[in-house]
Amino acid sequence: MRAVRLEAIGDMTMRMVEKPNAEPGEIIVRVLAAGICGSDRHMYKGEYPTAIPVTLGHELCGLVEEVGEGVSSFVGGELVTVDPNIACGTCPACRRGRPNLCANLTAIGVTRDGGFADYVAVPCNQAFTLPPDLDPVHGAFCEPLACCIHAIDKAQIRPGDSVAILGGGVIGLLMVQLARLAGADQIILVTRQLSRREAALRLGATLALDPTAIDAVAAVKDVTHGGVDVIIECAGVPETLQSGVRMARRGGALVLFGVTPAGLEVPILPFDLLVNEVEIRPAYLNPFTHARAAAMVGSGILELDSLVTKTIGLEDVAGVVGSAPLAGEIKVIVRP
Amino acid sequence: MRAVRLEAIGDMTMRMVEKPNAEPGEIIVRVLAAGICGSDRHMYKGEYPTAIPVTLGHELCGLVEEVGEGVSSFVGGELVTVDPNIACGTCPACRRGRPNLCANLTAIGVTRDGGFADYVAVPCNQAFTLPPDLDPVHGAFCEPLACCIHAIDKAQIRPGDSVAILGGGVIGLLMVQLARLAGADQIILVTRQLSRREAALRLGATLALDPTAIDAVAAVKDVTHGGVDVIIECAGVPETLQSGVRMARRGGALVLFGVTPAGLEVPILPFDLLVNEVEIRPAYLNPFTHARAAAMVGSGILELDSLVTKTIGLEDVAGVVGSAPLAGEIKVIVRP
Amino acid sequence: MRAVRLEAIGDMTMRMVEKPNAEPGEIIVRVLAAGICGSDRHMYKGEYPTAIPVTLGHELCGLVEEVGEGVSSFVGGELVTVDPNIACGTCPACRRGRPNLCANLTAIGVTRDGGFADYVAVPCNQAFTLPPDLDPVHGAFCEPLACCIHAIDKAQIRPGDSVAILGGGVIGLLMVQLARLAGADQIILVTRQLSRREAALRLGATLALDPTAIDAVAAVKDVTHGGVDVIIECAGVPETLQSGVRMARRGGALVLFGVTPAGLEVPILPFDLLVNEVEIRPAYLNPFTHARAAAMVGSGILELDSLVTKTIGLEDVAGVVGSAPLAGEIKVIVRP
Amino acid sequence: MRAVRLEAIGDMTMRMVEKPNAEPGEIIVRVLAAGICGSDRHMYKGEYPTAIPVTLGHELCGLVEEVGEGVSSFVGGELVTVDPNIACGTCPACRRGRPNLCANLTAIGVTRDGGFADYVAVPCNQAFTLPPDLDPVHGAFCEPLACCIHAIDKAQIRPGDSVAILGGGVIGLLMVQLARLAGADQIILVTRQLSRREAALRLGATLALDPTAIDAVAAVKDVTHGGVDVIIECAGVPETLQSGVRMARRGGALVLFGVTPAGLEVPILPFDLLVNEVEIRPAYLNPFTHARAAAMVGSGILELDSLVTKTIGLEDVAGVVGSAPLAGEIKVIVRP
Ligand SMILES: NC(=O)c1ccc[n+]([C@@H]2O[C@H](COP(=O)([O-])OP(=O)(O)OC[C@H]3O[C@@H](n4cnc5c(N)ncnc54)[C@H](OP(=O)(O)O)[C@@H]3O)[C@@H](O)[C@H]2O)c1
Ligand SMILES: NC(=O)c1ccc[n+]([C@@H]2O[C@H](COP(=O)([O-])OP(=O)(O)OC[C@H]3O[C@@H](n4cnc5c(N)ncnc54)[C@H](OP(=O)(O)O)[C@@H]3O)[C@@H](O)[C@H]2O)c1
Ligand SMILES: NC(=O)c1ccc[n+]([C@@H]2O[C@H](COP(=O)([O-])OP(=O)(O)OC[C@H]3O[C@@H](n4cnc5c(N)ncnc54)[C@H](OP(=O)(O)O)[C@@H]3O)[C@@H](O)[C@H]2O)c1
Ligand SMILES: NC(=O)c1ccc[n+]([C@@H]2O[C@H](COP(=O)([O-])OP(=O)(O)OC[C@H]3O[C@@H](n4cnc5c(N)ncnc54)[C@H](OP(=O)(O)O)[C@@H]3O)[C@@H](O)[C@H]2O)c1
Ligand SMILES: [Zn+2]
Ligand SMILES: [Zn+2]
Ligand SMILES: [Zn+2]
Ligand SMILES: [Zn+2]
Repeated sequence: MRAVRLEAIGDMTMRMVEKPNAEPGEIIVRVLAAGICGSDRHMYKGEYPTAIPVTLGHELCGLVEEVGEGVSSFVGGELVTVDPNIACGTCPACRRGRPNLCANLTAIGVTRDGGFADYVAVPCNQAFTLPPDLDPVHGAFCEPLACCIHAIDKAQIRPGDSVAILGGGVIGLLMVQLARLAGADQIILVTRQLSRREAALRLGATLALDPTAIDAVAAVKDVTHGGVDVIIECAGVPETLQSGVRMARRGGALVLFGVTPAGLEVPILPFDLLVNEVEIRPAYLNPFTHARAAAMVGSGILELDSLVTKTIGLEDVAGVVGSAPLAGEIKVIVRP
Repeated sequence: MRAVRLEAIGDMTMRMVEKPNAEPGEIIVRVLAAGICGSDRHMYKGEYPTAIPVTLGHELCGLVEEVGEGVSSFVGGELVTVDPNIACGTCPACRRGRPNLCANLTAIGVTRDGGFADYVAVPCNQAFTLPPDLDPVHGAFCEPLACCIHAIDKAQIRPGDSVAILGGGVIGLLMVQLARLAGADQIILVTRQLSRREAALRLGATLALDPTAIDAVAAVKDVTHGGVDVIIECAGVPETLQSGVRMARRGGALVLFGVTPAGLEVPILPFDLLVNEVEIRPAYLNPFTHARAAAMVGSGILELDSLVTKTIGLEDVAGVVGSAPLAGEIKVIVRP
Repeated sequence: MRAVRLEAIGDMTMRMVEKPNAEPGEIIVRVLAAGICGSDRHMYKGEYPTAIPVTLGHELCGLVEEVGEGVSSFVGGELVTVDPNIACGTCPACRRGRPNLCANLTAIGVTRDGGFADYVAVPCNQAFTLPPDLDPVHGAFCEPLACCIHAIDKAQIRPGDSVAILGGGVIGLLMVQLARLAGADQIILVTRQLSRREAALRLGATLALDPTAIDAVAAVKDVTHGGVDVIIECAGVPETLQSGVRMARRGGALVLFGVTPAGLEVPILPFDLLVNEVEIRPAYLNPFTHARAAAMVGSGILELDSLVTKTIGLEDVAGVVGSAPLAGEIKVIVRP
Repeated sequence: MRAVRLEAIGDMTMRMVEKPNAEPGEIIVRVLAAGICGSDRHMYKGEYPTAIPVTLGHELCGLVEEVGEGVSSFVGGELVTVDPNIACGTCPACRRGRPNLCANLTAIGVTRDGGFADYVAVPCNQAFTLPPDLDPVHGAFCEPLACCIHAIDKAQIRPGDSVAILGGGVIGLLMVQLARLAGADQIILVTRQLSRREAALRLGATLALDPTAIDAVAAVKDVTHGGVDVIIECAGVPETLQSGVRMARRGGALVLFGVTPAGLEVPILPFDLLVNEVEIRPAYLNPFTHARAAAMVGSGILELDSLVTKTIGLEDVAGVVGSAPLAGEIKVIVRP
């Protein structure tokens, strides 16, 4: 079968490999759609540790093709989404019910072969059934969505709250939709590209601001009469962390979601955090949220089609992952 | 009567003033004990806004001497502790149940006359009855204790958790006791002065570390097998905020309590916060906790006597507030 | 001015009384709209304690006509909604931040004169400004809505959750809308009258069931694949409490909102509650939610017009309150 | 090896069986201590479903004797406690992070062979290391303790709170200790047997009441000045559920822990629950708490020796499980 292999840092190619066999407890999934994510680019450049060589691709949807020994939850033929993050179950974090903080986390498409291939082997507990008639491209959104749902849980939005979302990539545009579903009254997206601001307004944002054109902090404070209840930082740059905290209403909270480079220091003002009682709540990965994401995608309540800016075949994956995102790119989907 | 007046920034003297009258809804309290707090020194130096002139003293305990019109909750003669922070009741924060974030907060001993005097006028809702035979010096601890209880609420300590307390002033030594009462298993105090580390061990800390002698982060991680569940920052310096975050277990939390100067920036590492899901939870003032503090002080469960390092009369207040704390000072109590 | 007076249990008439004067801290509100609530009927029949004689009417909206001494938050002319429940501020519940459990609760339209009159005196802290151009009829919905918001807070609905609402009176139909705003995916209303089921479907319910025609428990379990995440009981009858608990998903919760008669016993199955870990969470009155209700009504996000089934003048209040609700009645509004 | 087999309902005998082999992923534990629990008596009588035939014993501690294929977390020789409850990992409850509500729960000592035997096979993820020098009898307490910790999590005790514990069996006496560790100020045990009330007072209760001698509700309300913050029901009889709710402070909570017979109805007063906002929070089994229980037992902070009222060999298990508990019995420990 074909697979897009990361052979070494900066070296990725599609080539023929052997189709995987289902080990006991595993299923073989025929990949129908897989999303390319910013992390894939980080892995390509060696900024995020992976197995080498490995097939990347951790946002995937496909059909169960083969069922290994001891698997009773699938018979074959099901449309499934895959939670790529495999917690060990025995480390202290797992035993406290915090699998996203597992000390021995492994991941499909990172430390073992993933979805940029014709087939992928998946431990059966990591696969979640979707409605059979669902567009597999939608199914490929379950993984990022599950992370966003965890962030929304941490955001504790109450009906009537105001929410600012910083960064209008695919994550920010999913967060806009989730904030709307969580009952936010005002939903303000801050992002630089016009096309994304327009998309946000179509997806439920009540306001979209360009931080290069205006003072976003002042604007947000103004429209929210003093500060926003919840900020969801999903740009992953120092500016948004800093401006995010300053946008908060007294008693508000910032959900930290964007990934800044390891080691990068960002100055904050502890006095302001304190007297305004602004909490910082990080949300990392997808603890116990993949099933909810699958249900939500399955229900059709999210607008996902307009987030797909390009669809490619396996032969084009290396090219896309190996280059910077094009202007306007939101989500590139691979259809093997 | 006598009162210690802040006449101008840097200018404080004891002098005779008229005894206050009880306005409708107020009571007159004869002050039996009042604590000097670090904030008093900040106010003296103009680093924290106050009325001028004003009588300072916001940690106070005394006897109800006179009862104004319309007051039914006191008859006179009760021993009371006073919550100095007066929320307006009508601003958005008050109406959301967040009185500590009141936009119009006033305070006894800050914006109106306080307890470094023979008598003080107090809105009756701000006074809380104590057992009549309680040592009034203990009663003077209710105010800082109420703030600490709010911090402990935010800390969400569960039986068996480990807690690190950074800064061994009176706040840190109260937090040690509260952490013990909240069921913490390991309680680690980090502070520089030996006398405080010794005090902490007497008060329930299981370990006390000198951050100038050893690597406190490494030591805490070591004894807690990887990181502490909760850090309570009560030194108010950049070092402890930074080291505090680094001591946390994955999934842990830092309660921000110490007051750093307004405008002071402290660099943090967002990547580390994120992948370790370490929350930062500020705790400011005493929302709905003064009654609990009064009950706790009244129950006698806290060791407070050893926190009083000096007792002075009104005539010595200006001298103490006007100078830096002496080495070994924990709490100076004024007994008019 | 005119006022509808409860003179004795079962004896209510409109008559001329003196217009109230604004005491210090009070405002006089000219009533533009006031809702009749089931509790008014209970008070009429002596099933709920009130002052006697008293003017009923606790759901009210009007214009500030006069401003008493010491009131700075109003100048006159503002459109306001009134939170009728006046907490004492000093009882243990108030001091723990639980004003709805105040031991000395008084209420406008219950223990002091209310809104079925041309004018009503209101302590200024109980009044909340609305947009000047808001329909006052909408303003009269703030009070029941504030109670519903408290229930929704207790419900802890997460995006994607399923919610069953039992009882399709005005409360149930507000809950349908709030559940939708809180991100519920499936919203099932159970009520007997067809007109209400139809209304619910227009207002956002995804399913509406007649409990007399089908087995509602079985139907809810079926459409939710095993049980609903949250049940909001707002019928106030034993049947719905019992069936509500049985509809719950394992790990679900029932919010108890309906008022059953004092002393009425309802059998529950503790074994089932336990092994399914179904929590029962009562929600009583409107702690710190009136401002949120006012903001939500002001934003226009709720559909309220279709909940008003009749509009009457003061002269008809006694007749309506003194009779049972007509079939199809949802909310009767009084416009003096 | 020897094993105490439940051969049929009401028929239990010790006999020789084959020593189990470690399947892949399993370990063989040599049992050093196993507790007899009320559930064992229910299983014996057929009141709780089990496999038949099966070796009972789900509270166990022992030495790792053999390590199956693929097990890397043990090498042999470790002292371990076993979490008997095995969640499937794939049902909706498991995937929402609620393993105690697993739809396919199996259990060691219930649906597969347990610890009333010389050896027991254990999936390695169910075993938790204890300090090597710990008394194995203490290790046998981890299982009930883990359930109690879950209840304490649900109780949300804050320092200074009052707690009433209803039922003074082994569970009640563990809860007394946990409530003390959680910072409860007043801890009131209600139980009929004098010896248990005396034990409770030694273990940290501040008051112990005999419900047959006095009106426990009135007494609790009296000493807590109006009602207790948290009630933990661990008697499993209708009386305690009913009196428990009535003891609550307004705004308090009852944690439902005791197991009443399936199908047994208990009348409650919804009006009282509502206007007092008393929550009912069931706590079932041990979700993510076994590691915390193991750490707590390992730390030696609990007094467990005095809870052991009898120690027997395997040959006496059938006799004890087949008879009603003797007066004064708290925990019977089996040492094979
Ligand atoms: N915590 C987790 O579990 C988790 C999971 C998945 C992803 N993430 C992280 O979430 C973040 C967003 O992911 P993504 O896929 O949406 O990535 P993305 O496309 O890189 O989105 C981030 C967007 O933020 C915007 N941005 C950059 N600087 C900005 C500024 N100063 N102000 C406002 N917006 C700014 C950019 O859009 P414009 O050009 O329009 O400004 C950028 O495209 C990334 O950091 C990713 O690593 C975290
Ligand atoms: N959030 C609130 O509502 C609230 C309320 C009251 C007070 N506060 C704040 O809480 C803090 C503590 O109050 P306090 O009255 O206890 O003041 P304090 O006596 O000034 O205590 C702080 C102590 O921290 C220790 N410290 C300083 N640098 C340190 C370091 N690098 N590492 C470890 N310890 C260090 C010092 O003791 P050593 O000399 O022993 O190191 C110092 O005495 C203050 O910032 C105060 O403003 C906050
Ligand atoms: N907790 C609080 O703070 C608070 C505040 C306000 C109101 N409440 C209470 O909330 C409840 C609802 O208020 P409301 O104004 O909406 O009163 P309502 O009009 O009396 O609504 C209750 C509705 O429940 C329906 N119902 C009755 N039996 C039913 C059954 N067996 N199954 C399903 N539905 C049934 C009835 O409609 P159908 O004829 O269509 O069945 C009835 O009209 C009342 O008990 C009220 O006292 C509580
Ligand atoms: N939720 C869970 O996950 C879980 C886990 C384990 C156990 N449990 C349950 O927890 C309960 C306690 O377990 P246990 O092992 O301690 O059982 P236990 O020994 O049967 O303890 C219950 C005790 O409650 C007391 N009691 C009975 N009627 C009472 C009354 N009217 N008022 C006050 N006390 C009364 C009895 O002691 P006196 O004779 O002294 O009155 C009885 O011994 C059981 O129902 C058990 O099934 C639940
Ligand atoms: Zn793990
Ligand atoms: Zn205020
Ligand atoms: Zn009150
Ligand atoms: Zn399961």
